[in-house]
Amino acid sequence: MELNQVFEQRRAVNFFDTEKKIDEETIRRIYDIAKLAPSSFNLQPWKIILASDPEQKEKLKKCAGGQPKVTEASHVAIVLGDKKAYEKMDPILDDFIARGFFGEQMRDTLKGMAKGLYAGENERAFASRNAGLFAMSFMLAAKSLGVDTHPMDGMDNNAVREAFNVPDDYDVVMLIAIGKHDEAKALLPRAGRKPFEEVFVKETF
Amino acid sequence: MELNQVFEQRRAVNFFDTEKKIDEETIRRIYDIAKLAPSSFNLQPWKIILASDPEQKEKLKKCAGGQPKVTEASHVAIVLGDKKAYEKMDPILDDFIARGFFGEQMRDTLKGMAKGLYAGENERAFASRNAGLFAMSFMLAAKSLGVDTHPMDGMDNNAVREAFNVPDDYDVVMLIAIGKHDEAKALLPRAGRKPFEEVFVKETF
Repeated sequence: MELNQVFEQRRAVNFFDTEKKIDEETIRRIYDIAKLAPSSFNLQPWKIILASDPEQKEKLKKCAGGQPKVTEASHVAIVLGDKKAYEKMDPILDDFIARGFFGEQMRDTLKGMAKGLYAGENERAFASRNAGLFAMSFMLAAKSLGVDTHPMDGMDNNAVREAFNVPDDYDVVMLIAIGKHDEAKALLPRAGRKPFEEVFVKETF
Repeated sequence: MELNQVFEQRRAVNFFDTEKKIDEETIRRIYDIAKLAPSSFNLQPWKIILASDPEQKEKLKKCAGGQPKVTEASHVAIVLGDKKAYEKMDPILDDFIARGFFGEQMRDTLKGMAKGLYAGENERAFASRNAGLFAMSFMLAAKSLGVDTHPMDGMDNNAVREAFNVPDDYDVVMLIAIGKHDEAKALLPRAGRKPFEEVFVKETF
């Protein structure tokens, strides 16, 4: 599917067909595209808990203001961002070194750089922007394979964290409902987008 | 261009052809695709300062550890996330109301919801994840139009803020170098990606 068509056809789908389930093979195919998203130092600081059985989705719905799409969707991805990825760099650096990008002597330098950039007060921003890159990739890859999604950030993060035992290192960045649009229920027209001039600004705007 | 090809061909390009400039018309075409990215309440809480003249790029390079690509690229987008977008909802709500999504009586409810979700300690995470969605859309849209990019977050945010007079409401989320790959300089092979099982985890991982 052409990229511009994917962008045009990707909508935040509110109404999922409860009869149409997405199989794991399809989710793996979506991931095989989405995993190509870039990330800081290639750390890929994200994880997904896929809520798919009725009890999990019911539990998640309670954390998300009771929105019906949480249980109507085939799956809901709980997208987690790793705030402490800079402490877990070794496997990524092993990969870089194995590929000959640089030598072993760079390991500590790169760890120090990452810590300087992403630790402390920057941890959540780091996790959120990286998980945002991945989440967008996931939604576009899904649409290109005929799968609809709905990104949500209107949930009680602490409740999700408790209900799904999310480790402290991870931030709950967003939820993505996944399934097939129930075409009997029309979506609203797409909301407006800001004109170029409003987004692309000059210094001192 | 097919979406999966765009993902495969999008690389973080380190070497830009300094002779090849991207014209504003192309950047507008990229935006016309990327603007379709979703955002919280459709707030589109992002702005871009495009550094394109040599002085601007030199100034920016100093904030980004002297990386040559900052000046070699045709443009560098300074991607800003609006931490206070929840205080600027009226034009977006006007659009929703004009389209008949809901009535005027919902305005204050929605403002209250957004404030509850995104204010205070959540401001940077809100700005970062939304700007991440847009940044990924921008890089993919660019590649589909033959334009290369390189996302960077290894810069001194406060220095960028000062050098470009970024208002307090905005966070400097990342830089995106924009241009054409200098094909005389080969890129490294793509770094590894985590297997499905490492990213898609169970509850209590």
